[in-house]
Amino acid sequence: MPSLDLDAARRLASGLFDALFEQTRDDPGVTRVTYGDGEQAAFALVAEAAMAFGAEQTFDAAGNQFLTLAGRDRSKRIVVGSHLDSVPHGGNFDGAAGVIMGVAAQKALAEAGVVPAYDVTVACLRAEESCWFPHSYIGSKTALGRLEEGIVDGVRRSDSGETLAHHIDALGFDAEGVRNGASWLTPETVVAYIEPHIEQAPALIDAGLPLAAVSGIRGSFRFREMVCRGEYSHSGAMPRHLRRDAAVASARLVVGMQGLWERMEADGEDLTVTFGQIGTDPANHSFSKVAGEVRLCLDVRSQNEATLARVEQELQTLCATIGQETGTRFDLGPRSRSKPAIMAPHLVALVNDACRAKNLPVHTMPSGAGHDAATFANAGVPSVMIFIRNANGSHNPDEAMEMVDFDAALAALTEMLTAPATAWRSE
Amino acid sequence: MPSLDLDAARRLASGLFDALFEQTRDDPGVTRVTYGDGEQAAFALVAEAAMAFGAEQTFDAAGNQFLTLAGRDRSKRIVVGSHLDSVPHGGNFDGAAGVIMGVAAQKALAEAGVVPAYDVTVACLRAEESCWFPHSYIGSKTALGRLEEGIVDGVRRSDSGETLAHHIDALGFDAEGVRNGASWLTPETVVAYIEPHIEQAPALIDAGLPLAAVSGIRGSFRFREMVCRGEYSHSGAMPRHLRRDAAVASARLVVGMQGLWERMEADGEDLTVTFGQIGTDPANHSFSKVAGEVRLCLDVRSQNEATLARVEQELQTLCATIGQETGTRFDLGPRSRSKPAIMAPHLVALVNDACRAKNLPVHTMPSGAGHDAATFANAGVPSVMIFIRNANGSHNPDEAMEMVDFDAALAALTEMLTAPATAWRSE
Repeated sequence: MPSLDLDAARRLASGLFDALFEQTRDDPGVTRVTYGDGEQAAFALVAEAAMAFGAEQTFDAAGNQFLTLAGRDRSKRIVVGSHLDSVPHGGNFDGAAGVIMGVAAQKALAEAGVVPAYDVTVACLRAEESCWFPHSYIGSKTALGRLEEGIVDGVRRSDSGETLAHHIDALGFDAEGVRNGASWLTPETVVAYIEPHIEQAPALIDAGLPLAAVSGIRGSFRFREMVCRGEYSHSGAMPRHLRRDAAVASARLVVGMQGLWERMEADGEDLTVTFGQIGTDPANHSFSKVAGEVRLCLDVRSQNEATLARVEQELQTLCATIGQETGTRFDLGPRSRSKPAIMAPHLVALVNDACRAKNLPVHTMPSGAGHDAATFANAGVPSVMIFIRNANGSHNPDEAMEMVDFDAALAALTEMLTAPATAWRSE
Repeated sequence: MPSLDLDAARRLASGLFDALFEQTRDDPGVTRVTYGDGEQAAFALVAEAAMAFGAEQTFDAAGNQFLTLAGRDRSKRIVVGSHLDSVPHGGNFDGAAGVIMGVAAQKALAEAGVVPAYDVTVACLRAEESCWFPHSYIGSKTALGRLEEGIVDGVRRSDSGETLAHHIDALGFDAEGVRNGASWLTPETVVAYIEPHIEQAPALIDAGLPLAAVSGIRGSFRFREMVCRGEYSHSGAMPRHLRRDAAVASARLVVGMQGLWERMEADGEDLTVTFGQIGTDPANHSFSKVAGEVRLCLDVRSQNEATLARVEQELQTLCATIGQETGTRFDLGPRSRSKPAIMAPHLVALVNDACRAKNLPVHTMPSGAGHDAATFANAGVPSVMIFIRNANGSHNPDEAMEMVDFDAALAALTEMLTAPATAWRSE
């Protein structure tokens, strides 16, 4: 097959980014409240663009939007998608880049008259940013009819105070259908879910690579309410051997867990270990008191469940040892967990093949952040992500995706979508 | 000299503690605001008791109260004292034990008809607790005419918002005199300042000793606004080698300084090292973000100036090393300092001799907390402290001084006060 001309697709994408920024601007950055004006504007923009080249528009009960380009076999579909909400004062690319890349790729296929092996559907998902509703992956879960029971009536939007059901119905969609597990997508007929997304750390920047295939989305365990309890005492008078210093004990835990990470990383294990919050108690601490209490927040992530289990075991051992040696006691508090999501190896290979075909560097990496692709993968849909280089992280107005890198990923995605039916089979 | 009968003195002390608790009770504990009702009540109680056995009452310009029992040589005086203010909801003994012990000892001398070598003056000092006025040792500094310029009009009481001058004048004393350095005590004529005080840590409890002579009051340096700055990034996505993690850097600093303390203590150096406050920034931290900033408070104390200097040097080296290795930067911020105060060796010996004479254990230890004795010592007045065992620290309602330990210290103090004139000479 000859190379497709992507110029028009690139111009479309560029224009969509500009229009989206203009319509959802909220200095600094953009705000696209889910089920609110910003997300609605984004949905309308990309739908108008896709319908202009003949895509079919569909909504499901939850109001997720699907834009479909007909394939040779219309009984199955390849879904390209991501979300269109943003955090308050976020960047223009987080989520939107995946949707816009899908529409741009559809345009390239449509205008070249290339009919893909299966329908190609761009999924515009809602409510991925958990700042709006305190629950993860609402859009992809409703898209698959898999939202957990009680959530549609149980979570309230942080700005409005209204339930998810209220907001679904207010836009004319069908909360009762969501309650009953209705979905437009049927997982069995989705041969692949492909989610292009900006990388949320500068690993690709550091490696000098424009894009990468994602091997898996790290799972996690978190202790968000960990407390180390010792005893307050006089900073100048309390002898060292009588202290029960929660600050020293906590510091030893942080240093100990960092050492564990270094050793496991050296052994080739995929892992991140982060104490993002740590603090003595402002109501009781003083510069002249040995700290009697420290609160800590621990977030541990890995693509590998066994790695997570081992780290949790080591954490408990370390807390017990340090507690004993310092006269303090660690209370880990409630644990929350998420399962790692493994991307489909044949789709990772398909991304890498497409990169090779377009003379792009080939690289595979884990995703440390969660994405809707985790929902699809854990529902049994073969899934893959394409990360695009981005200098300044996400969830801030300074996201720095270069259009030249977006264009490289668009070329790889479009190449993938021209693959024959056999390429989408995992066997 | 025959042993004095201390029964009446003990009963007086016990009654004064009870009355003082009753009059200044503020559940839980007691509150004796300086230049306020609680301190005034305490002044009146002890004055009434002392004047009953013939002590002379005097006030200085700042309102410090002096209760004097005449000695053989009336041109010089031995001062026994401490402060009578307390922190809010503090304990009944911090400060008051020293004053009450002085009055009880005077009573024992007076009723036995023992005339001490010099006048024995009990000093009831004001404003030692810096919770009321943000300045240290106001009572002992004004007693010696040495309050720093500008303070009397420059500090305001935390509860009233009024200046120290206002409160001095409001009680009928003489702020203008304080401004001009007036004092009733003349340092040259004070042969000794003796401050009995509860220990503010459980070192004596731990050692099984009722009391100790104090060898010196630790000086300190403090960095109360230390900041470690790194960079916020995604906890799950940011690779380890690209992180600039202020929590890890700060933990390494705490652990490193603790190690330094252990090594220096093993070398026999007197030292305490305390990070009493530590915390990520609640406005910006998150469980899912690598910490970009941590604030820390460091308090280092030693009887030895050279030790303090060495620790400060090591701190700077450690901050530089850790900063370089972690991509963070420590800003130490402003430093505050206090000089160590050395207790007079001949007075330490006199306390120890008195303990031996009364069949009490002999022990000498540093004071980690600051006391008015530091002002006297640094003004050139030979000074000593007597620590009394106390289980639960100070500045809290749970201070646990046993009267049997107070009585032991009272016996030692009374014994000291019968020493001949030659015993008070340092040569």
